[in-house]
Amino acid sequence: MSGAFTHHGGRIADACARFGGAPEDWLDLSTGINPVPWQPPPALAIDWRGLPDTQALARLEARAAGHFGVAPNLCMAVPGSETALRLLARVLDLPGLTPPLAYGTYRDAFAPGAALASGEDPPPRATAIVLGNPNNPDGTVLAPARALALLAHQEAHGGWLIVDEAFADCAPDASVAALVAPQRRLIVLRSFGKFFGLAGLRLGFLIAPEGVLAALRHLLGDWPVHAAALALGTAAYADRTWIADTRQALPARAAALDRVLRRHGLSPEGACPLFRLVRTPEAGRLFAMLARRRILTRPCADHSDLLRLGLPADDAERARLDAALAQGRADG
Amino acid sequence: MSGAFTHHGGRIADACARFGGAPEDWLDLSTGINPVPWQPPPALAIDWRGLPDTQALARLEARAAGHFGVAPNLCMAVPGSETALRLLARVLDLPGLTPPLAYGTYRDAFAPGAALASGEDPPPRATAIVLGNPNNPDGTVLAPARALALLAHQEAHGGWLIVDEAFADCAPDASVAALVAPQRRLIVLRSFGKFFGLAGLRLGFLIAPEGVLAALRHLLGDWPVHAAALALGTAAYADRTWIADTRQALPARAAALDRVLRRHGLSPEGACPLFRLVRTPEAGRLFAMLARRRILTRPCADHSDLLRLGLPADDAERARLDAALAQGRADG
Repeated sequence: MSGAFTHHGGRIADACARFGGAPEDWLDLSTGINPVPWQPPPALAIDWRGLPDTQALARLEARAAGHFGVAPNLCMAVPGSETALRLLARVLDLPGLTPPLAYGTYRDAFAPGAALASGEDPPPRATAIVLGNPNNPDGTVLAPARALALLAHQEAHGGWLIVDEAFADCAPDASVAALVAPQRRLIVLRSFGKFFGLAGLRLGFLIAPEGVLAALRHLLGDWPVHAAALALGTAAYADRTWIADTRQALPARAAALDRVLRRHGLSPEGACPLFRLVRTPEAGRLFAMLARRRILTRPCADHSDLLRLGLPADDAERARLDAALAQGRADG
Repeated sequence: MSGAFTHHGGRIADACARFGGAPEDWLDLSTGINPVPWQPPPALAIDWRGLPDTQALARLEARAAGHFGVAPNLCMAVPGSETALRLLARVLDLPGLTPPLAYGTYRDAFAPGAALASGEDPPPRATAIVLGNPNNPDGTVLAPARALALLAHQEAHGGWLIVDEAFADCAPDASVAALVAPQRRLIVLRSFGKFFGLAGLRLGFLIAPEGVLAALRHLLGDWPVHAAALALGTAAYADRTWIADTRQALPARAAALDRVLRRHGLSPEGACPLFRLVRTPEAGRLFAMLARRRILTRPCADHSDLLRLGLPADDAERARLDAALAQGRADG
């Protein structure tokens, strides 16, 4: 029943087709996108006429590198980290190793490899290990010791460690981006749209040794991102007040979601405040029950006991989720 | 002197650094972008918050396919035809054959092949022939008989014919897009930004057999273009009045440019009304003379006798070019 909704979140049009209602009837909790987005200053007009300016691109990359705490020459803008992951897979051309519970694109993009459980040693050959940090959907953070051990292993065997930090802006201390260096075999991906709540912009960043960046620049050409990505991205990464406020607000909002979930006997997991995972044999029933009430959540492919919920934006949205969960229990 | 400006047009920031002035001082005639762009309706607001909607993507692709006169299932949106060309080169993995005078990306993206002169037969092996139609920078149109002969040759030898129709919207009858079919080895690229004058949007289309589209969709992922590309592209391709008016206006504007050029002893070439090519041993001197007067034109790599000029938008811009050419001649 929930198959169409496991691959990606945000499929409200599909949800309308399957469960009814119009898009505006739905509460979308199927993504990990900040529901309280950064607002561009009203005076920031987008000029779509000319080609994206190469100096503006360099400024965006420098600004983002500062936000990530990395050297600007190791950081490039990409048209979404989804596309960048797929291009990286093509460029590196190695079998992928991914955690059993991971974002589906890792397995779809990389040549078939194997699953890599959390404590396990990788096999002694060249592979591309692809991990989320924090991991999606369970929100676990990569321990620095584990990152260093995996990196040493990959460097000894001619492999690469790829860390997808699409959700890392909430907890900058957990990032391994600062470990990227010219001679290391570590690549970090960042996403603009999730923390800043503007996923429609399709802006991400690749932090990698210069040879990897050169290969990606050659594949994308001189205009890797569009004019609005340059303008909004540059302004947003400079907005230190909003960033600091949002780093405070998101955990509070996640804690409020946790209280709602616990009230209904669910045990939310995860260290990332942009989404919560619940484990219950009732996950499928819960997904369908919420969908009938026009609340879209995210089931997990191959894990029928898991359901991921994004953050409600405010009290009204939390109350709606609360009421739906209460009615669902009452209806048995 | 003009080396930095041969690869791509629109490098106004570089022009300021080299020749002085602020960006607003310059008249940019270095691109083939329509200087009188399509204007989005004022009510068309871009919602950047959610992921780009997959149904909206299908609508854009269907609308664009209608504009190109091709079947919707053979047409996909891409984040700029520049990027699409580069990804195609990677996917097809064949040596490239390009005309001696062609857009630089063809040679940069495809594995080294050879030059293919206009009447010449391609070699009897699998290659990717990459042609512009109309060709950039000389504006020549691909004759249908030549297209069919090249396609038959490529199909006999396991190669592909790739026709870059970035500038084809002005003269739809010249397009070979309608020849793309599931069993043929023909790929056509289209660009949104040039005819509609909104190059900062980075929107293009690939028209190709479904296997090629599937390979590109796998490389780009489920969100190949951003939210504004979906909204503006869909609205612009539906604006039949603007499209018809612009198809009338551009040739008139090009003819007015031709009159200015001829007045100064230059002989403009090309069937594409978005740019004009002049051949003169003085091309280098002409580029520098215009640049000193804050008019940026486009020199051609490896062809020091060529200079390409984009369209002035109006009488004032044409008068400025006219005056600069007159002063340049007077100064010797």
